[in-house]
Amino acid sequence: MSFDAPVKDMLFNIEHLSRWSEVAGLDKYDGLELSDAGAVLEEFGRFCAEEIAPLNASGDADASHFQDGKVQLAGGFAQAYQKFVEMGWQSLPHPSAFGGQDLPRAVAASATEMLNAANLSFALCPLLTDGAIEALLTAGSDATKATYLDNLVSGKWTGTMNLTEPQAGSDLALVRSRAEPQADGTYKVSGTKIFITYGEHDMSENIVHLVLARTPDAPAGVKGISLFLVPKFMVGDDGALGARNAVHCQSVEHKLGIKASPTAVLQFEGATGFLIGEENAGLTYMFEMMNSARYAVGLQGIAVGERAYQQALAFAKERVQSAPVDGSSRDAVTIVHHPDVRRMLMRMRVLTEGARGMAAFAAGCQDLARNAGSPEAQAEAKALSEFLTPLVKGFSTENGVEVASLGVQVHGGMGFIEETGAAQHYRDARILPIYEGTTAIQANDLVGRKTLRDGGKTARALAARIAETEAELAAGSAAAQAVAPRLAVARQAFEEVVAHLLSLDKAEMPAAFGAGVPYLMLAGNLVSGWQMARGLLAAEAALARGEDPEFMTAKVASARFYADHVLCETEVQRSRCVSGAESLAAALL
Amino acid sequence: MSFDAPVKDMLFNIEHLSRWSEVAGLDKYDGLELSDAGAVLEEFGRFCAEEIAPLNASGDADASHFQDGKVQLAGGFAQAYQKFVEMGWQSLPHPSAFGGQDLPRAVAASATEMLNAANLSFALCPLLTDGAIEALLTAGSDATKATYLDNLVSGKWTGTMNLTEPQAGSDLALVRSRAEPQADGTYKVSGTKIFITYGEHDMSENIVHLVLARTPDAPAGVKGISLFLVPKFMVGDDGALGARNAVHCQSVEHKLGIKASPTAVLQFEGATGFLIGEENAGLTYMFEMMNSARYAVGLQGIAVGERAYQQALAFAKERVQSAPVDGSSRDAVTIVHHPDVRRMLMRMRVLTEGARGMAAFAAGCQDLARNAGSPEAQAEAKALSEFLTPLVKGFSTENGVEVASLGVQVHGGMGFIEETGAAQHYRDARILPIYEGTTAIQANDLVGRKTLRDGGKTARALAARIAETEAELAAGSAAAQAVAPRLAVARQAFEEVVAHLLSLDKAEMPAAFGAGVPYLMLAGNLVSGWQMARGLLAAEAALARGEDPEFMTAKVASARFYADHVLCETEVQRSRCVSGAESLAAALL
Repeated sequence: MSFDAPVKDMLFNIEHLSRWSEVAGLDKYDGLELSDAGAVLEEFGRFCAEEIAPLNASGDADASHFQDGKVQLAGGFAQAYQKFVEMGWQSLPHPSAFGGQDLPRAVAASATEMLNAANLSFALCPLLTDGAIEALLTAGSDATKATYLDNLVSGKWTGTMNLTEPQAGSDLALVRSRAEPQADGTYKVSGTKIFITYGEHDMSENIVHLVLARTPDAPAGVKGISLFLVPKFMVGDDGALGARNAVHCQSVEHKLGIKASPTAVLQFEGATGFLIGEENAGLTYMFEMMNSARYAVGLQGIAVGERAYQQALAFAKERVQSAPVDGSSRDAVTIVHHPDVRRMLMRMRVLTEGARGMAAFAAGCQDLARNAGSPEAQAEAKALSEFLTPLVKGFSTENGVEVASLGVQVHGGMGFIEETGAAQHYRDARILPIYEGTTAIQANDLVGRKTLRDGGKTARALAARIAETEAELAAGSAAAQAVAPRLAVARQAFEEVVAHLLSLDKAEMPAAFGAGVPYLMLAGNLVSGWQMARGLLAAEAALARGEDPEFMTAKVASARFYADHVLCETEVQRSRCVSGAESLAAALL
Repeated sequence: MSFDAPVKDMLFNIEHLSRWSEVAGLDKYDGLELSDAGAVLEEFGRFCAEEIAPLNASGDADASHFQDGKVQLAGGFAQAYQKFVEMGWQSLPHPSAFGGQDLPRAVAASATEMLNAANLSFALCPLLTDGAIEALLTAGSDATKATYLDNLVSGKWTGTMNLTEPQAGSDLALVRSRAEPQADGTYKVSGTKIFITYGEHDMSENIVHLVLARTPDAPAGVKGISLFLVPKFMVGDDGALGARNAVHCQSVEHKLGIKASPTAVLQFEGATGFLIGEENAGLTYMFEMMNSARYAVGLQGIAVGERAYQQALAFAKERVQSAPVDGSSRDAVTIVHHPDVRRMLMRMRVLTEGARGMAAFAAGCQDLARNAGSPEAQAEAKALSEFLTPLVKGFSTENGVEVASLGVQVHGGMGFIEETGAAQHYRDARILPIYEGTTAIQANDLVGRKTLRDGGKTARALAARIAETEAELAAGSAAAQAVAPRLAVARQAFEEVVAHLLSLDKAEMPAAFGAGVPYLMLAGNLVSGWQMARGLLAAEAALARGEDPEFMTAKVASARFYADHVLCETEVQRSRCVSGAESLAAALL
């Protein structure tokens, strides 16, 4: 159950898929070389493999739990987190103004993926801290930033997101937690929050809770929600930690997976909170934080797929069972030679590589959205980046579940035995299409805010980019020419669905949203397949230069497999979107 | 987490899908009425709901384990099993000559499904006993039958299948257990068997192990495997239990799911065994037993889907979250109103109903294969039944995993919390596409023995039957006419794949077997969709007679949903089978 960070594939993606020449050409990243990125990823990959991956299975067995009024973390987590902080890994993507290393997301995303592949449960803590930093950068006052950001960026303090309440999950309009303004400008925050990841633990000196709550006169619904910062320990003007705040852990959930990550029920009992940004604008800020977190959860889907794939491949290369079907031997061979095992492993591999490629492209768009040289270029990249977020989140996490499930299947009966470790990935992965917005919530976002709102403009711009790649493929090698028509069919299916959604009137919104998940899966599949095709072109160019033939040949083979075995699914999704509404409406439940 | 046996749907299937008029017209079942079947299923459904279903979650929490040298079963299991035996439920499908009730499989299959839906872990014990009975009926001597069958049919004794060894899973050619002949005609059996379901427990007086082993001069490979009966306690000529035999449990596995079912490692140390049938013919008999067990595991896939669906539907009708997308209310509504939740629930429902329909049709074929009036009719039914076994096993269990996973998704974050119960189905279901032959093993069987061996004859006969239904649909209602072309496209895809497989030469067998699982999924989807279509026709006829409008209208709606949302997947599988071999062969792993 060892783990090797797939640094070579990541660097290939950064170079060829992440709009690297545009990103590295930004003033902000002046002088940044691909080799710098490679050095960081190599070193972090070693850290993940040596320090974090070994705690994955043990953390699952020794789950975090609530005992004697305290959250007990899995053995070794606190020490490993200490090393993580000491080595400065939390700070990679954050601004140098607060002690960060200002690495572009095109690079930092790979670091996030590898930490998650090493250990999903461990990686959740830094992931939530990243979200808190994001929210404070977006909406925090200068004073708040000065008080909290340095310690969050270093990882000395950790962050949480407090959205969910027992009656308010996907529907934040139902949030009931209250915030009473005080004479000193602070608020007293009260309410029960559930499913709070790393909501309580003692591996950092302080925890910075970001909490959604309502002020007394707030309007009903989502327009009356404000965002508050509630520290576990009060912070003095000198930065020293003071009194314990009135927020306490009530219990820790008993979960299917990611068992080492403590999922807390938090009780806020008049805890001192600080308003972040404007009153009643909390959801807007939370969305900033959530977009970042949603993208990161997409990376988790890729990560768990990578880990499951590595384990299944290693097993398939060791396990001897049955003679080959081509009659080439009468003796049993390792199962990696059997056609269906190859099919499963290739599916695991290309779903992971495709989603990784999509995430790389999206990361480059995120960098350009923030830092491109002109407002127009920023706006174009921002629209693309926002369109891609629900795809990265929804498609990659649904894939993560499928890949982890295939990983169990490759192991046969041994996969069902917990000690083997394949089952943990299957359990861990299952939360990914749920938290930070279920796949349906992502699909609603994709349909409503990302497709209908701009009249399909971003979707069509994306399709036009893909059509350019088709033209390059059609003028290329035999492999490229085999992929071109598959990509074209998928892209046309996407365009047809977009046109269909735009043709629906207000009364037909149930049909539009009923088609949401098939549309998301189609779009995610298409964009991932497009990256595989771009990768094919880049790999063939590298082959022509004599670079790394084994790796590049495998990239070409993976792209072809993706085209033949995965892209074809877009046709089914198209059919569901365009012709499935009537039977869905007629359903009797 | 209560359970209602879906008796109405089962009786509908028996009447309309299981070739009931042919089955009930057999001499063997003279006088059997549908109402008799209904009475049995109603009563057994109550028993399952009241006595067995409540032990499902508790058995998962209180997993079977090995302690102080003994297998400790989950609380309540032994008492429930006692009731199960006292009420005669084990005996339903078995011959009256040994105390059975001679119920046709067309009826008994429903009983098996409901017991499994109530509690997969519990149901495995009777399921394995059924397999042992089957093997002894096939190959046991009269003396063996006389000694063992009465007590197995009553359930007083239980049965096991001992195939797997650490080095021999899918590949039984690698079995190493030995059987040394003794002067008295018995054998001394030695070896280690793993993954033995209910291999040791004390809820029955005796355990009858059926064990694959090699005699000293046996040829290598699968042609040198013999089948032995090894009782836990020796049985005297008077039927009284005697000495403990030299077979002992070494440990019980720590598994992802079906945790209440003890999965034992058994050590045979010169245990006294009795040869069943001829030496070296063990695999043939074991296949009889396995075919029965494979069909039953297919029922488990349907069962876990039914249970997961009932739980998810109940949750969706209670959980209030978000206003409807059609703007009909500004208040949050129960989530069953949201389009994507409806889509997920309908998919869960129709995958389950479709697979149940296929199992009903297959069960009727099994009855006719054994008891039809002419050898020709028996042969035709047998070929069909054998063709369907890998579909029932493979397609229904892959569906079971998907349905259970959707069940978690419908619950949102609550689905990830173990106490909710949805996660148990997801864990339990995962073994079903693995044990009794993985999906790939089923696909190999389908491609090799069931399709290529008879030159596609059975496959084409099946397609011709489906084409008849298409003609009926085309002449029917608007709903029927909507389903007809979907079914035709799927049937043509099936025929194209069959023709493709037949066109491959010996050197192309990797391509044939690489297409095996997609072909199996296509065929299972088609046959299930065909049953949904037959059900639609029957439901519309019933509606015309004014029978049970709510139920019949739902059957029509389900058939349409299946056609629009599930049958369309056959196109993707066709493409993988026909055009996917080259990229699979080029894969680099």
